[in-house]
Amino acid sequence: MANVAMLGTGLIGLFYTMSLHGKRRRDRVVVVQGRDAAKTKAFAETWGIPRSTTSLEEAVAAEGVDLVVVGLPNHLHLEAVEAAVRAGRGVLCTKPLARTAAEARRILEAVEKAGVFHGYLEDLVYTPKMLKALASVRKGAIGRVLWTRSREAHPGPHSDWFWTKEMSGGGALVDMGCHCIEIGRSFVGKDVRPVEAVCWAATQVHPIEAEDSTVGLVRYASGAVAQFEAAWTFRGGMDLRDEVSGTGGTIWINNWLRTGFEMFSVPGSGGYVAEKAETESGWLFPVGDETSALGYDDMFADMLDAFDRKAAPVETFYDGYVVNAIMDACYRSVETKRWEPVLIEDWRGATEAQDARGHAEYDARHWLIKRERMPDGKTKLILKDKQTGAVVQRVE
Amino acid sequence: MANVAMLGTGLIGLFYTMSLHGKRRRDRVVVVQGRDAAKTKAFAETWGIPRSTTSLEEAVAAEGVDLVVVGLPNHLHLEAVEAAVRAGRGVLCTKPLARTAAEARRILEAVEKAGVFHGYLEDLVYTPKMLKALASVRKGAIGRVLWTRSREAHPGPHSDWFWTKEMSGGGALVDMGCHCIEIGRSFVGKDVRPVEAVCWAATQVHPIEAEDSTVGLVRYASGAVAQFEAAWTFRGGMDLRDEVSGTGGTIWINNWLRTGFEMFSVPGSGGYVAEKAETESGWLFPVGDETSALGYDDMFADMLDAFDRKAAPVETFYDGYVVNAIMDACYRSVETKRWEPVLIEDWRGATEAQDARGHAEYDARHWLIKRERMPDGKTKLILKDKQTGAVVQRVE
Amino acid sequence: MANVAMLGTGLIGLFYTMSLHGKRRRDRVVVVQGRDAAKTKAFAETWGIPRSTTSLEEAVAAEGVDLVVVGLPNHLHLEAVEAAVRAGRGVLCTKPLARTAAEARRILEAVEKAGVFHGYLEDLVYTPKMLKALASVRKGAIGRVLWTRSREAHPGPHSDWFWTKEMSGGGALVDMGCHCIEIGRSFVGKDVRPVEAVCWAATQVHPIEAEDSTVGLVRYASGAVAQFEAAWTFRGGMDLRDEVSGTGGTIWINNWLRTGFEMFSVPGSGGYVAEKAETESGWLFPVGDETSALGYDDMFADMLDAFDRKAAPVETFYDGYVVNAIMDACYRSVETKRWEPVLIEDWRGATEAQDARGHAEYDARHWLIKRERMPDGKTKLILKDKQTGAVVQRVE
Amino acid sequence: MANVAMLGTGLIGLFYTMSLHGKRRRDRVVVVQGRDAAKTKAFAETWGIPRSTTSLEEAVAAEGVDLVVVGLPNHLHLEAVEAAVRAGRGVLCTKPLARTAAEARRILEAVEKAGVFHGYLEDLVYTPKMLKALASVRKGAIGRVLWTRSREAHPGPHSDWFWTKEMSGGGALVDMGCHCIEIGRSFVGKDVRPVEAVCWAATQVHPIEAEDSTVGLVRYASGAVAQFEAAWTFRGGMDLRDEVSGTGGTIWINNWLRTGFEMFSVPGSGGYVAEKAETESGWLFPVGDETSALGYDDMFADMLDAFDRKAAPVETFYDGYVVNAIMDACYRSVETKRWEPVLIEDWRGATEAQDARGHAEYDARHWLIKRERMPDGKTKLILKDKQTGAVVQRVE
Repeated sequence: MANVAMLGTGLIGLFYTMSLHGKRRRDRVVVVQGRDAAKTKAFAETWGIPRSTTSLEEAVAAEGVDLVVVGLPNHLHLEAVEAAVRAGRGVLCTKPLARTAAEARRILEAVEKAGVFHGYLEDLVYTPKMLKALASVRKGAIGRVLWTRSREAHPGPHSDWFWTKEMSGGGALVDMGCHCIEIGRSFVGKDVRPVEAVCWAATQVHPIEAEDSTVGLVRYASGAVAQFEAAWTFRGGMDLRDEVSGTGGTIWINNWLRTGFEMFSVPGSGGYVAEKAETESGWLFPVGDETSALGYDDMFADMLDAFDRKAAPVETFYDGYVVNAIMDACYRSVETKRWEPVLIEDWRGATEAQDARGHAEYDARHWLIKRERMPDGKTKLILKDKQTGAVVQRVE
Repeated sequence: MANVAMLGTGLIGLFYTMSLHGKRRRDRVVVVQGRDAAKTKAFAETWGIPRSTTSLEEAVAAEGVDLVVVGLPNHLHLEAVEAAVRAGRGVLCTKPLARTAAEARRILEAVEKAGVFHGYLEDLVYTPKMLKALASVRKGAIGRVLWTRSREAHPGPHSDWFWTKEMSGGGALVDMGCHCIEIGRSFVGKDVRPVEAVCWAATQVHPIEAEDSTVGLVRYASGAVAQFEAAWTFRGGMDLRDEVSGTGGTIWINNWLRTGFEMFSVPGSGGYVAEKAETESGWLFPVGDETSALGYDDMFADMLDAFDRKAAPVETFYDGYVVNAIMDACYRSVETKRWEPVLIEDWRGATEAQDARGHAEYDARHWLIKRERMPDGKTKLILKDKQTGAVVQRVE
Repeated sequence: MANVAMLGTGLIGLFYTMSLHGKRRRDRVVVVQGRDAAKTKAFAETWGIPRSTTSLEEAVAAEGVDLVVVGLPNHLHLEAVEAAVRAGRGVLCTKPLARTAAEARRILEAVEKAGVFHGYLEDLVYTPKMLKALASVRKGAIGRVLWTRSREAHPGPHSDWFWTKEMSGGGALVDMGCHCIEIGRSFVGKDVRPVEAVCWAATQVHPIEAEDSTVGLVRYASGAVAQFEAAWTFRGGMDLRDEVSGTGGTIWINNWLRTGFEMFSVPGSGGYVAEKAETESGWLFPVGDETSALGYDDMFADMLDAFDRKAAPVETFYDGYVVNAIMDACYRSVETKRWEPVLIEDWRGATEAQDARGHAEYDARHWLIKRERMPDGKTKLILKDKQTGAVVQRVE
Repeated sequence: MANVAMLGTGLIGLFYTMSLHGKRRRDRVVVVQGRDAAKTKAFAETWGIPRSTTSLEEAVAAEGVDLVVVGLPNHLHLEAVEAAVRAGRGVLCTKPLARTAAEARRILEAVEKAGVFHGYLEDLVYTPKMLKALASVRKGAIGRVLWTRSREAHPGPHSDWFWTKEMSGGGALVDMGCHCIEIGRSFVGKDVRPVEAVCWAATQVHPIEAEDSTVGLVRYASGAVAQFEAAWTFRGGMDLRDEVSGTGGTIWINNWLRTGFEMFSVPGSGGYVAEKAETESGWLFPVGDETSALGYDDMFADMLDAFDRKAAPVETFYDGYVVNAIMDACYRSVETKRWEPVLIEDWRGATEAQDARGHAEYDARHWLIKRERMPDGKTKLILKDKQTGAVVQRVE
């Protein structure tokens, strides 16, 4: 059982608290901190939290607190983590870890120097579907990973600070690309070095400085490519889909808009349908259990189990730092219009090139390119002569 | 926090324990009982349960036990509930409550006379999608409920006793139709009386006495019809789908085979894909979080919260009894080949007929039958003269 | 190349003509007949039809006409077919063939006595998905057929006569159940005798005499059961789904609302989305090629190829008569509240009982009930002792 | 009615002939040409084609031929088109038009100088779903187009020449990227200039010189970005999906693997499931009407109607040339690792920049960034001060 200080009462603080307090879980939020005293007090009452405060320092230092959860706007993460470290608390920080790799580096160093427990709250790596998919990939169910795509798109966030570049550090890339990048990295293997990135980003719709739409590619040392798509311009709800292709298979995940729950309503649902849903009548696509589907439940289970065991959770601040380093390369690429190297100060994964490509041999003289069952029932082989390089076909 | 005695170490005992002990929940199984001492001991070790026993009496009487969970074959429910009642424990019983309404009646009377807490473990009414769908229906999102369909089909259960009619009480109807019937009843409204039922059941494939396939209709006092389909003959995995139609909308739920998680695997997943999955390579449809998707997590949360509050959970033994009464009518209908009344000794819901059908008036002279936007952009009205009964169409 | 006289200018006449004249087909409608002279003339102009008339007799007798297509309200089918027969034309009649089996019988006898070509325009048996599914079933891809379900539901038809029982012969059952019944029959095998039927039908919503919702079961001599669901009360568009289960597999077809084409539109599509679509903004589900998806293209190709070859098409008036006989049994069942025999005067299919159920033998002493791969990697067998009937389980 | 000379008897020649001769169409293939005399003769017999030959010159010059269809490997397109032009025939050429923009330019000039009819057989722009989607986009159903994604992926082509770079001109990009690029261009608007492209391409799996996987972005003068994904490394069948996002909506198209037709088969389908399907048992996803779903039927209808009308079809050789120009830029980008301009010699579309981005005004002082319905029923506004640039939020 852990006692939590929750920093932030916005949507993310709400989802975190719902998850921590839901379904007879044993952990408790014992103090909540927010800018607005009245709103914070109401939040505490709603969720049965004994104390509320507007003071970050007071919250992290409150008696009995084991862990601080940082659910604040991006520009406040460094300050909040430093406060938690000063109080000697373990600290869990929402995504992205920081606005830049340099800032993420400072956050990482703060916790590592102090030796406190730290977890990076990258929930979308923990959705039930992702967890099972990752386990399958590791068991070899789809062979060697070649390509991944992660997409998060919706009509835009609900709080003002997201839209203000100084506070957020950027637009859709920083807000949601960070999820997609870590999902891709998890599929490729977190031990595999991200080498370089190319990125397109533009402000297509909104009167803001940051990008509201972005697409990028991250190339890994294994030869795999992880593609991300993030947009605040999407209409139709929240699009959360992931795909991964390997030499032996493929996985398609839809976390939100198409999960086997469909409703047509003429009178309308009379309120909330699902996060970022845009309509309340006609065809609607609710989500059964939102905190579970978004990964919060499994994420906190991993974080708090790790805390109890004094071990590292699946996602640490180092992972958050790597994601920020990849995003930095992406932003440089948007400027230079070319692939940019991913700069990581202390790469902790595997160092050698991991390109494991091997060819299938058909016989002593040929590589096998392809074998296919044809409509007439015969099997056609495409072969390559190892010496001459000539491609030939045979029908068996 | 509740201490649980788990009776049964089969698949259902396994799922129940996984759910109770999962994701940092505060409740604990403190003793587990099974027929086979070695298997029961191993079960206890795997799940961190301090005591194991082969004695049902010993288990229910074990020190500190608050609640007994009956996860035993159908023919042992009565005996197990009576033992729990004698020990003064609250009791939760898996579905179906009993093999017949008469047996269910004895179980219900046992707990009610003793005044102990009781809950009917009808998990599929508690899947996250069902809970949200039921809430929408109650808020009026689909208008007045007209028709529901609930389907559970798979290639057959995994334990011998299911296939032995004396122990199970029947085949696919008793095993899975009980789920479908209570789902339909929940959509129609548990206050609405089930009036009569018609049922087809046959042994189409297996060398058994009981039916391996069944379809039936239950007509309610409101005029709504709830349809169920249950089969042990289905190939392709476990088919768990529910639909409900109302005057203002419709809801489609797919709990298992199509939930937004699709995998193609040439080498194969190397093992378990999902409950009742039939293949391990090719196109596979895993389920993210099985205990959540099957409703176990939300079911135990409701049961244990109710126990703490000393209130009734959503599903009680009375509900289990009503389901058995409906199944009895179905079995009679299979014999008589006609609609049979549902016989309930003490109906506790609404008593008057609830047929709320009202017609929409177009003007003083006409009822409105239908209004439709046509391809040419015009709107066509179908009207009925209130006096003459003549149907006419008008284009606006 | 065939010259067609089209009787009727309603939605069905429109779809038929679109299909016949579409995509460079070689056949032509050479005369069209309708009640309203101006509307009929406009129809002829739109579709490049050289002649229009309000006279049925004139249309069928027009020079050069090879085939008459009856696209008229149900109560006019007999009269129209008789006129076509008198003129010595081949005749294709829309579904249902008639309002009752007796009327269908007269229609069938009219064409058979005269020896003219006849085809029953049951388009939904000809959708591209159905054709491929039927071919798979016949090749044994799903083993022996056990159960089928066909569903057609939408918010109700667009012409006044459908809602007037004297003209239509009934409600949703006659209008759409006829499709579902012939789909089920096609899956089970048209050579297999339909033995008996049970049916529920009610007027749940509209101020009409006929049923606006119905569900029924038809039991065949092979032991298979074909289930149909038809409703004019469905909200959400047009629901056209079929399923079939066999001992070796299952097939799921969605012809309309979920075909891999999804659109979210805030401004709205600005008009027609798909037949019976209810909304024009929000999430929409258009259909790519409606005449193809509804089976019209393949149906007319079969009909006209058969006409050229002087052979019978897949669907003849005899099939229409069998469907009416099944519907008659259903209507009787609604009255008597029991299973009713299907009365067919001259059954032309197989006569013996075709229940082909055989049990799988495990060894000399046991039948095999079930073999299942368990989560722990072991295989569990459920066996039945041939002599004692006892069910036992073994783990391999 | 048109008489066609078919050059090529491979899979594409087969699909083209199936489409042209199917469902009572009035056009005829009157001569077919192939390398192998016996195979070509058999092809002619199967499809009722009166003449077969191994001579390209003989085929195009055969009496009565109106149109030549080039269904040959890429390196033979130029030669075949020149032969058709010499014979004075109209000519339709399969995709891609050529191996490079320079070669495409020569093909385009050949037909334009001679003034013969020409059509670019880009079938995937003509699938029934695409046609309806394009019509919706043009009517404004999704607002201004911002982003498109087109994906074609499968386990690789079935003929040797595809795998030989000198003949094909490249790998997955030339083979399938050409489809995706023209789909993106069609959504963005063919009048809008493609400005620049960035592309990743690699040989991830096969022992070949060309790329077997590629992803790229094409930026258009309107600010829209069209993304393509093409791979010969995908496992699971043929993945044909398209998406388009606009300021007012989104469209998702699945042309192949998920079209509402699902089959589970234990014994197996006994043969062909769908083009590029990899499995014949387990869960299978057949396609109802393949020639329709792949766009062949509507493509030939447009081409031949245009030929009859002496007008240009939707897709001409100029479109093929533009696609080759974009692919050239992509291949340069793979080398230079940066965005490369798309070089088009004679751009025939709109010339001015078409960035139509306008902001929504909330009041005289503010732009509206976003309006969102919150879970508590209130509406939150995110506004931007026009003068100060500050972002503020308000709750209505």
